[in-house]
Amino acid sequence: EIVAAIETALGGGPLAGRRVLVTSGPTHEPIDPVRYIANRSSGAQGTAIAGALAGLGADVVFVTGPAEVPPPAGVQVVAVETAAQMAEAVRAALPVDAGVFAAAVADWRVASASDRKLKKTRDGIPALEFAENPDILKTVARMTEGRPGLVVGFAAETDDVVAHATAKRARKGCDWIVANDVSPATGIMGGSENAVVLITADGVEDWPRMSKAEVAQRLAARIASALGG
Amino acid sequence: EIVAAIETALGGGPLAGRRVLVTSGPTHEPIDPVRYIANRSSGAQGTAIAGALAGLGADVVFVTGPAEVPPPAGVQVVAVETAAQMAEAVRAALPVDAGVFAAAVADWRVASASDRKLKKTRDGIPALEFAENPDILKTVARMTEGRPGLVVGFAAETDDVVAHATAKRARKGCDWIVANDVSPATGIMGGSENAVVLITADGVEDWPRMSKAEVAQRLAARIASALGG
Repeated sequence: EIVAAIETALGGGPLAGRRVLVTSGPTHEPIDPVRYIANRSSGAQGTAIAGALAGLGADVVFVTGPAEVPPPAGVQVVAVETAAQMAEAVRAALPVDAGVFAAAVADWRVASASDRKLKKTRDGIPALEFAENPDILKTVARMTEGRPGLVVGFAAETDDVVAHATAKRARKGCDWIVANDVSPATGIMGGSENAVVLITADGVEDWPRMSKAEVAQRLAARIASALGG
Repeated sequence: EIVAAIETALGGGPLAGRRVLVTSGPTHEPIDPVRYIANRSSGAQGTAIAGALAGLGADVVFVTGPAEVPPPAGVQVVAVETAAQMAEAVRAALPVDAGVFAAAVADWRVASASDRKLKKTRDGIPALEFAENPDILKTVARMTEGRPGLVVGFAAETDDVVAHATAKRARKGCDWIVANDVSPATGIMGGSENAVVLITADGVEDWPRMSKAEVAQRLAARIASALGG
């Protein structure tokens, strides 16, 4: 680690000269000027990963929704709010050598968000129509030209974690899926620890429960390896 | 102000011996373990009001949703997440001499929040059914026994502020409404300033734009006056 720190200080490190995109945090999808739909995501794991990649010398573009934790030092921060804005920021950041899609992107947005505050009516609740958001991970993973050499997705599940995440990897066409169980009982959501499963073409690796910082270090080292760093 | 500070330090102040309830912040209404519906509210104005009331010697119960700003010093904090939890915390805090309902409470919740993460299906978007949340302000304002001597509601509007807020005062049965225009262009939502209209039985008072701290001081002084402090 000391060697790594010195290498980085000297502009070296196994990821020197590599450009890596990391998405992180939740997205907020407006309903009207005062209401929105959100995902629970503190941004802690994505932030730690971006920091770890920068620590290995990568040139990191960090596209972040409204997270609870501040962005790491030494990365290029692009702050967004909605999934559509995140998709656009990702497009603008390409090409990259690797993309790590840790953000908890809303699958749906309200089809026609109101620019006035919705009011309770005599008929009760105003009807909300939903539309599907762009699938950022799938779009990048299935690029036919200029696809990043390594595309890493995340899967936050509450049940059948490995089955859901394995299916997600195939469906999206990404290289790796980092999956975790975010059931409230695990204390992972909003907590400082994580227990992940890494799913690759070679199979399923169960990582022991460790701090989010350690998950980040380990994942960053694997990414460096995969990129031949 | 120095006199007030000394009075408070000595256990005095115009609100000494008075018990005041302040609600603040947004509520978060779960859709499933990873998604929720939220109101935009930093909690800044409610927090400043609670602090100002405590500064005048009141015994403040501060019921707060997941706000961005930390609670003020010198108050009893009750942290909640949903509107239903806030309603219960308010019930538990009564009786009080005055209630200030500054929280941005969700009007609706998802009728049957899922304990598993909702999945995209071939049919598209899962249907969400909404149910109306308890109306905390109206419930307290219309109490026939043990009603606080002064009930203050808030109205965050984006258009026809005075008309909407005047109607709200009548509909809820509260004594005062503090109304403001939270259209994005005003910069009030999430900002440090506020421009409010105070609506009472005597009519409509337009307060000039000032800091949220000054709005809080002025409102706290008015409450002290109204309670005969």
